[in-house]
Amino acid sequence: MDQAEWKLLKEIAELEKTPQGAYNIRRNGALDSRNSTANIEITTKTEPGKSGIDIRIKPGTRHESVHIPVIISQTGLSEMVYNDFFIGEDCDVDIVAGCGIHNTGCETSQHDGVHTFYVGKNSKVRYVERHYGEGPGTGKRIMNPQTVVYLEEGATINLESTQIRGVDSTKRETKIVVGKDAEAIITEKLLTHGEQTAESDMEIILDGEGANGRVVSRSVAQDQSQQVFYPKVTGNARCFGHVQCDSIIMGDARISSIPAIVANHVDAQLIHEAAIGRIAGDQILKLMTLGLTEQEAEEKILDGFLQ
Amino acid sequence: MDQAEWKLLKEIAELEKTPQGAYNIRRNGALDSRNSTANIEITTKTEPGKSGIDIRIKPGTRHESVHIPVIISQTGLSEMVYNDFFIGEDCDVDIVAGCGIHNTGCETSQHDGVHTFYVGKNSKVRYVERHYGEGPGTGKRIMNPQTVVYLEEGATINLESTQIRGVDSTKRETKIVVGKDAEAIITEKLLTHGEQTAESDMEIILDGEGANGRVVSRSVAQDQSQQVFYPKVTGNARCFGHVQCDSIIMGDARISSIPAIVANHVDAQLIHEAAIGRIAGDQILKLMTLGLTEQEAEEKILDGFLQ
Repeated sequence: MDQAEWKLLKEIAELEKTPQGAYNIRRNGALDSRNSTANIEITTKTEPGKSGIDIRIKPGTRHESVHIPVIISQTGLSEMVYNDFFIGEDCDVDIVAGCGIHNTGCETSQHDGVHTFYVGKNSKVRYVERHYGEGPGTGKRIMNPQTVVYLEEGATINLESTQIRGVDSTKRETKIVVGKDAEAIITEKLLTHGEQTAESDMEIILDGEGANGRVVSRSVAQDQSQQVFYPKVTGNARCFGHVQCDSIIMGDARISSIPAIVANHVDAQLIHEAAIGRIAGDQILKLMTLGLTEQEAEEKILDGFLQ
Repeated sequence: MDQAEWKLLKEIAELEKTPQGAYNIRRNGALDSRNSTANIEITTKTEPGKSGIDIRIKPGTRHESVHIPVIISQTGLSEMVYNDFFIGEDCDVDIVAGCGIHNTGCETSQHDGVHTFYVGKNSKVRYVERHYGEGPGTGKRIMNPQTVVYLEEGATINLESTQIRGVDSTKRETKIVVGKDAEAIITEKLLTHGEQTAESDMEIILDGEGANGRVVSRSVAQDQSQQVFYPKVTGNARCFGHVQCDSIIMGDARISSIPAIVANHVDAQLIHEAAIGRIAGDQILKLMTLGLTEQEAEEKILDGFLQ
């Protein structure tokens, strides 16, 4: 891997060298390197015409991690990848995915990924996904991630997705089916700039008794960029769901927030909150009195907002 | 009018006798009685095939009211009515509409009404609309109200709509275009029971600088009834919009709340909140310790919630 590729890996997976534990690095549409461990087995899919990997995590696996970053530095490369995660019972694992595109050419580079998680009883999964695009080329950088999660009884997923910057177009689809006493927590952070467009469809289906779902979505839309959010929580049993969407609008950007809460059960308790607004002027002023320029103050506030 | 019809008038317009000021009472698809005043003129529409009235309110009319209730006591009657309101500048008026259906037969009685308001500069309108159905018949009671409002600079509308009970099916559509420094306030209260269905589409378009929009929606769904809400606020200028939807779910009811906030301007500040849940058990318990039965306690809480 060259320097630009290592930079992508650092942005999307905070990796400066080959990761510890299990990993699978996909580079320009092919396997770059892989490591399975005693508890975590990674295999290439064998179905014809279906690119991707299967990740099998043994029951009882705790405090282990899997890194599966994807990097594209080749202009004009477009791929569709299917990754399936089979996580046994009583696990506690971190999964770090993400995609970085460095486009130096004039052709579109595109990564579409479908990640499906089968999370066993009482297992705890932290899933981190970061998206980043860069490069001096005029070719588009496009990423369309699909995430589907099935949580068995007592299982938890903590899904943290971040679109750092540089992604020209994205359509994100997330669907989580939450079983008895299981919990889904989604934290989404998204920045768009220039002429970029982003759409995020999210659905949490609270199917089991005592199911919990929480969504925190924070976004910043700069310049002429456009964002649309469709977070949906459906309650089919005694359950609790909470969706919170906050967006900062800048320049000539446009943001739509179109949530849905659907109660199909008398004991479904569902709450939604959404807000769109610009950065408060007094916040900027306050930081400027501390010696920052207006631009520095703005960046400080946005960093804090997107953490 | 017979006793059942007077009862309808009382429910929907709090009238026990012929109202003061301007009025137009529509009964079983025809004019029952009408009164224009010096400032408020009511005329029958003359376009062929278009049933309804025009209400013209002179500029500067203040502290006057118009009552335009509609009652249907004839089973099988289905009507489509267009009422247009032309309200001059600097007015301050109350408009009381509403529809009551007493159905004793086995055929559907249906009232569809399109009310369009042109509200002049700096005018203030309070518009009250109440819907009520009753009667021992097996025929459906259906009401589909459409309300369209154009607010000129500095104008205000305070729209209070209530579906009291007894309406088998309703599809409510409300659209308000808010000009410079104008304000739209919607308060919607809706109760469904039995097998009833209700859908409410609402759109506030904040078009002018300094436009304001507020929606407070409260609903109770009992038994097997179903409700769907689509409140939408679009900000096209420096403006403020706030939508708040609260629903109480009971029995086997189903409720969907699908709001949208759309910011097309950097100075559009939009907020949405929605919650669906059952009556808190401790609230009922508290009232029961004061001597109420469980059912009485429940009714007390619902009355308070829907005022």
